[in-house]
Amino acid sequence: MKRSLIIISTIMMLFTGFWSSAQKNAITRVEPLNWWVGMANPNLQIMVYGPNIAACNVSINYPGVELKHTLKTGNPNYLFLDVVIAPSAQPGQMPIRFTSGKKTVATRLYDLLPRQEGSAMRQGFSSSDAIYLIMPDRFANGNPANDNMPGMIEQMNRKEPYGRHGGDLKGISDHLDYIRDLGMTAIWINPVQENNMPQSSYHGYAITDFYRIDARLGTNDDFKQLVDAARQKGIKVIMDMVFNHCGTGHWWMNDLPAADWINQWNGFTRSNYRLSTVSDPHVSQHDLAVATRGWFDNSMPDLNLQNPLLANYMIQNSIWWVEYAGLQGIRQDTYPYPDKEAMREWNLRVRREYPNFNIVGESWISSPSKLAYWQKDFPNRDGYNSELPSIFDFPLMEAMRRAFNEKETWDDGLVRLYDILADDHLYPNPDNLVTFAENHDIGRMMYFLKNDVRKFKMAMAFLATTRGTPQLYYGSEILMTGNGFDGHSFLREDFPGGWPGDTLNAFTPKGRNHKQNEAWDYMAKVFNYRKGNPVLHKGKLTHFIPADEVYVYFRTLGHQAVMVILNNAEEDAKTIDTSRFVEILKDFKTGKDVISGKAVSDLKTIRVPAKSATIIELMP
Amino acid sequence: MKRSLIIISTIMMLFTGFWSSAQKNAITRVEPLNWWVGMANPNLQIMVYGPNIAACNVSINYPGVELKHTLKTGNPNYLFLDVVIAPSAQPGQMPIRFTSGKKTVATRLYDLLPRQEGSAMRQGFSSSDAIYLIMPDRFANGNPANDNMPGMIEQMNRKEPYGRHGGDLKGISDHLDYIRDLGMTAIWINPVQENNMPQSSYHGYAITDFYRIDARLGTNDDFKQLVDAARQKGIKVIMDMVFNHCGTGHWWMNDLPAADWINQWNGFTRSNYRLSTVSDPHVSQHDLAVATRGWFDNSMPDLNLQNPLLANYMIQNSIWWVEYAGLQGIRQDTYPYPDKEAMREWNLRVRREYPNFNIVGESWISSPSKLAYWQKDFPNRDGYNSELPSIFDFPLMEAMRRAFNEKETWDDGLVRLYDILADDHLYPNPDNLVTFAENHDIGRMMYFLKNDVRKFKMAMAFLATTRGTPQLYYGSEILMTGNGFDGHSFLREDFPGGWPGDTLNAFTPKGRNHKQNEAWDYMAKVFNYRKGNPVLHKGKLTHFIPADEVYVYFRTLGHQAVMVILNNAEEDAKTIDTSRFVEILKDFKTGKDVISGKAVSDLKTIRVPAKSATIIELMP
Repeated sequence: MKRSLIIISTIMMLFTGFWSSAQKNAITRVEPLNWWVGMANPNLQIMVYGPNIAACNVSINYPGVELKHTLKTGNPNYLFLDVVIAPSAQPGQMPIRFTSGKKTVATRLYDLLPRQEGSAMRQGFSSSDAIYLIMPDRFANGNPANDNMPGMIEQMNRKEPYGRHGGDLKGISDHLDYIRDLGMTAIWINPVQENNMPQSSYHGYAITDFYRIDARLGTNDDFKQLVDAARQKGIKVIMDMVFNHCGTGHWWMNDLPAADWINQWNGFTRSNYRLSTVSDPHVSQHDLAVATRGWFDNSMPDLNLQNPLLANYMIQNSIWWVEYAGLQGIRQDTYPYPDKEAMREWNLRVRREYPNFNIVGESWISSPSKLAYWQKDFPNRDGYNSELPSIFDFPLMEAMRRAFNEKETWDDGLVRLYDILADDHLYPNPDNLVTFAENHDIGRMMYFLKNDVRKFKMAMAFLATTRGTPQLYYGSEILMTGNGFDGHSFLREDFPGGWPGDTLNAFTPKGRNHKQNEAWDYMAKVFNYRKGNPVLHKGKLTHFIPADEVYVYFRTLGHQAVMVILNNAEEDAKTIDTSRFVEILKDFKTGKDVISGKAVSDLKTIRVPAKSATIIELMP
Repeated sequence: MKRSLIIISTIMMLFTGFWSSAQKNAITRVEPLNWWVGMANPNLQIMVYGPNIAACNVSINYPGVELKHTLKTGNPNYLFLDVVIAPSAQPGQMPIRFTSGKKTVATRLYDLLPRQEGSAMRQGFSSSDAIYLIMPDRFANGNPANDNMPGMIEQMNRKEPYGRHGGDLKGISDHLDYIRDLGMTAIWINPVQENNMPQSSYHGYAITDFYRIDARLGTNDDFKQLVDAARQKGIKVIMDMVFNHCGTGHWWMNDLPAADWINQWNGFTRSNYRLSTVSDPHVSQHDLAVATRGWFDNSMPDLNLQNPLLANYMIQNSIWWVEYAGLQGIRQDTYPYPDKEAMREWNLRVRREYPNFNIVGESWISSPSKLAYWQKDFPNRDGYNSELPSIFDFPLMEAMRRAFNEKETWDDGLVRLYDILADDHLYPNPDNLVTFAENHDIGRMMYFLKNDVRKFKMAMAFLATTRGTPQLYYGSEILMTGNGFDGHSFLREDFPGGWPGDTLNAFTPKGRNHKQNEAWDYMAKVFNYRKGNPVLHKGKLTHFIPADEVYVYFRTLGHQAVMVILNNAEEDAKTIDTSRFVEILKDFKTGKDVISGKAVSDLKTIRVPAKSATIIELMP
């Protein structure tokens, strides 16, 4: 990438023919907001924005820091500083001096901070975690004082389904115990960066400032404090990032750093959303361009990560948030849409700083054949290695939607789960798939499972015990329902009790009805069991072909073993003859029913109710 | 494998404690029936079968031939001779002498033949071919004299849907011109080896003698002559082989060479037919064993290729047929069922003899994710490389069944074809997939396409122009119909005119009705066009996302290019604006409609009828 930067710099300098004196105090933005000493990568590229700033000369005089290049684009209001920070550099305020002729136009003191102890070696989320997804505007309003904020276009209107409802970071901080008690060990929060858009700004995916938490959710410092507080409770934080697009209200849209900063078309051109275009050897260049360079939405300009300055900007921005806030993971939106080479570079650079970090990409692809293309180390014939460690298991999600509703046939019902898991021969790392039955786009489990709590419990048991890192969605534990295809607002409703004055508070058992408590307690039971048992994090999965409406599988790790029996029969309790499972059961004599806590004295035959999951901890 | 042979030999000799004198003239079988000098692999293992033959000593005195080992099994009636044939060995009759003490019990003269010139470098079938699949009992009865043969249990009964109908090799030989005129360049014939079974022996998949053509089809020599005659007309022959099982009537079933020659169970155990068990990293050993060692049918004992003597027997048998008959290809039945290591060995050994040969395996798997496991050089995580060059494209078959019937949506209709082809990033060699819409098991195109000749033509055009090696099924060109799931007999009906006295002879235009001739002529047109145009054999495929019910793709090779437009609209002719295809069309100005032969003077807009395929040869 460095070579292309130099070429661009050279070309751009030819176009930047003249400049007038830069105005005093005219530097509007310097980004990243700060940096750290002791990073693995000594290079830093600072973007400076101000009227005619490109007319200035720049110098930096700070021990251990060298200004290597000054890069200009076609827009004289931008200047990019390539800085090298030696390992010997000490924390402090580094002066960046802007001069015009002999005159100093401005001096900015740029913070070089010390890193937190252990920052580089932080442990990312993994299959030992369970992730709780929160849409922050809709979870809890912990600080009504920030519901309406000066400078923010959209004001609070809780009656408008697509309006801002006032949920915020404080609302999440206030309920960390609730989340922990459910058995969750990580939260993924939908984007928290500023979305200063005229409408539908609540969802967070139209970012207008990549370096600033949306004021209606809190401050940058609030976010950092939330991550700290969560960590102290054993909860990791996964930040939702969006590299593919920004919001039309992004500050740079009025004065783009370069014409190719975003992908521009003659007339609005929407992506065709066909993600196979990226991996298909027969793809037409036309279709590929529309897929990856078309706009995701007309309110979301498509960022062109083929511009190396922009790619660098986004990569540094993500590292900035990891370091600043102390994150343990990133969820990257619309993964296959941005330039795939830049995304690969991003993964490598994040892992260079944090070798144990984890990133999950949203590749919304239903077939393992196409999804596997995107996991790190998949031996793609085109030579591409995404370097992306984790992907969402959309195929398993689709299987779950159907499996618990269907009557069993050769390829309907539980065999859908079996079949998708049988594709794991493809994935370089099946354990690092994020498994889920629902999210903020698709619909809630209760919707897909036709409001049947028995099926909900089966899904919970399955998610908690099969391979991968399970991800849930706020509110489903109290049986909230809704389907994204009927309109996103239906599945992004406010969590009852999250707002002062709410008549019911479902964060407490008293505020939940009987059925809700039944679901909540079941979920807490299976996920807390999961939390304490590494056999369910990384134990070998062995599964048996579903037969007689029953799917049986095991997780085994050293001497630990768990047996799971899913009975999909609508009416019939079953007595399972376990002789088929002798290859595992030969080492065990008794067991304990994880849900009831009761002993299972005889493993030869096991009685399981209709539409139920039975989880048995096996004992020698 | 050699090491295991020696171990087995040693073990078996311990069990073979005593033997009486072998009887004179008691040698029943010596297999392979003969061998050749100048093979790449100097090793040959000869199976000798006769009462108490294991009691004999064996010697071979022939220049350039060395008897390395004599191997015995637990059954004294079998003896396996490991022979090494030096490159210097000359053709001739090699005497194999069996002695007991000082007495010569028998001497067998074993033919070592010279190879046909160019035998080793023969060219196997490839994407330059189009394959016509024939069920020989049902195609044409060229020799009524062999309809009923002495020693064959099942006699001819044309009225019985599952009976023998009298079709034979002569019937195929008689119609090679017909096949060639259709544009076909290869025939795959369902198994022709002896099936001396009491019922349903017509299909050929319950072989009772691997070295003998079924007498009701002809003789070994007839088969060889058919292959010769076909080759002279430019038609390759692909032999159907079955390594997974034999028929219960196989001669060795009364006196198995070894207890583990077949996979034996306590009570009949049918395969579970779940082919994912072979590639699934989570599979249970129980399920895998039932899948691969369970019986395909109760009339088909499951051969255990983990027995190296049997594996060697089958491998040599296949090489024997290639060399004896002069084959250009093999279709292997039920590919994932037999031991996969032995199958890998088989591929390597066949290619060692015939480096340009081709083998297609029937891996009846609907998802590319699981099917790709089976193609040579797929980078399986378990380290397995099948070495199998070609596989049937079952996923594309399933897509074709539906694509032409459905109304277009995001994932229905023509996009099914697009989606399956977009999975080609998985296959190491997509061009070496055999594409088909029908076969002897599944059902005919006209059944799936709801007897709509327009759809039939679209399917023909698609098969002839997309990537891969197309395979058709006898009789579909005259619009025969039938669905295997209603019973196999419905799609294995006699070709009208194949039998003396048939009232209609559909081998000639006069014997076909108007609709049949329309279909026949169309098929002949597209496949003869394909035959002469390498651009359709190996040209690069570029396809465009289906839009407005139309799927457009191109094949390009050097300066050659063909454009294909499939219009799936039920009623509407369309005028295609071709500006979307500029990346290909920029190099071309005019074209020729391949079906009508008419010039296409303007490529800017192209008019295509409803439910039709348009094939345009592009010109600069």
